[in-house]
Amino acid sequence: MGPLDRLFAKIEAARGGDPATSYTAKLFQRGRPKIAQKLGEEAVEAVIELMRGDKPALIGESADLLYHLMVCWAEAGIAPDEVWAELARREGTSGIAEKAARKPA
Amino acid sequence: MGPLDRLFAKIEAARGGDPATSYTAKLFQRGRPKIAQKLGEEAVEAVIELMRGDKPALIGESADLLYHLMVCWAEAGIAPDEVWAELARREGTSGIAEKAARKPA
Amino acid sequence: MGPLDRLFAKIEAARGGDPATSYTAKLFQRGRPKIAQKLGEEAVEAVIELMRGDKPALIGESADLLYHLMVCWAEAGIAPDEVWAELARREGTSGIAEKAARKPA
Amino acid sequence: MGPLDRLFAKIEAARGGDPATSYTAKLFQRGRPKIAQKLGEEAVEAVIELMRGDKPALIGESADLLYHLMVCWAEAGIAPDEVWAELARREGTSGIAEKAARKPA
Repeated sequence: MGPLDRLFAKIEAARGGDPATSYTAKLFQRGRPKIAQKLGEEAVEAVIELMRGDKPALIGESADLLYHLMVCWAEAGIAPDEVWAELARREGTSGIAEKAARKPA
Repeated sequence: MGPLDRLFAKIEAARGGDPATSYTAKLFQRGRPKIAQKLGEEAVEAVIELMRGDKPALIGESADLLYHLMVCWAEAGIAPDEVWAELARREGTSGIAEKAARKPA
Repeated sequence: MGPLDRLFAKIEAARGGDPATSYTAKLFQRGRPKIAQKLGEEAVEAVIELMRGDKPALIGESADLLYHLMVCWAEAGIAPDEVWAELARREGTSGIAEKAARKPA
Repeated sequence: MGPLDRLFAKIEAARGGDPATSYTAKLFQRGRPKIAQKLGEEAVEAVIELMRGDKPALIGESADLLYHLMVCWAEAGIAPDEVWAELARREGTSGIAEKAARKPA
């Protein structure tokens, strides 16, 4: 079990916990718009740390971003395996090139 | 080796390739501001798909977001293990609670 | 009539035009998620230009951001006067302080 | 003097104030990365309110976004007239079409 699968399991376990003591439980309680907002905010912070060139800060923001992305998955009923399968599918069909063809930058 | 470690290895391998045929090589050639921009854009798309409740689209945008996040890591000289270590560190010290204390939403 | 009121009038006039020749008409045709996405993307670009310290580029991105913000207003049925009234209301009640109290950063 | 010129003048006046009592003065004190972050965050909130279709909330977030955009201008040494001139320039040369040609969505 990889580090992200473990993090996802922890999020699912915390989901039904006490919002007074669990940040994760509180986030689900606040609802989907707040969960989406946090994902966007963490991405903005990662963007800024990359521009600053602050490597330790970018590691921290990346961890925050991954955590909130997986809260989004749990909120949407997505299992990590579904995303890993999508990554594998792209790899199999030289997926990054396919992506580039699909979505001009 | 997990799916993200494999994706990161693929990114590092493609990095020095031909920008005319490799989306990844082209992205590195365009430079850090463009790489940061793509991360932000993919996060915005994930935010919107979560709000729409389009699960397959969110899976696709999550794959895009993870790919561009790992391009940021490669650009900043970060190895995936450094992020996994940060996630483990937080887990060990009940890190999400620590995060919540550190950064009021 | 200020520059933004004029821009908004132009957007409303272009809204019903031909999507084949008008960027504005095409944006409305593509629908709300695309309009929201463009707002987010332009903000990310402005964030990056501020971090780069590229003043002319930030002026250009600010114009892009204001244009797409006003497309959002038109999409949501908001008139510029409603936003100006909100700004005036905050000013009257020392609104920035009020905002700070409402939303810790 | 339009509502945004007035808001900008207020921001410039507050800039040198006491960070303990002025949100604006505190924001400048925290520095450019924090200012950029706030712009990105407010845009994410506007994106979400447009997707939710909450018109009053979008008006409020638009006011927040405009305020933080003008803090960015002050931080970068940009006067509102420079942005209004850019908007007028685009209008003069059927600028939106020009933009569309320059930047495929």
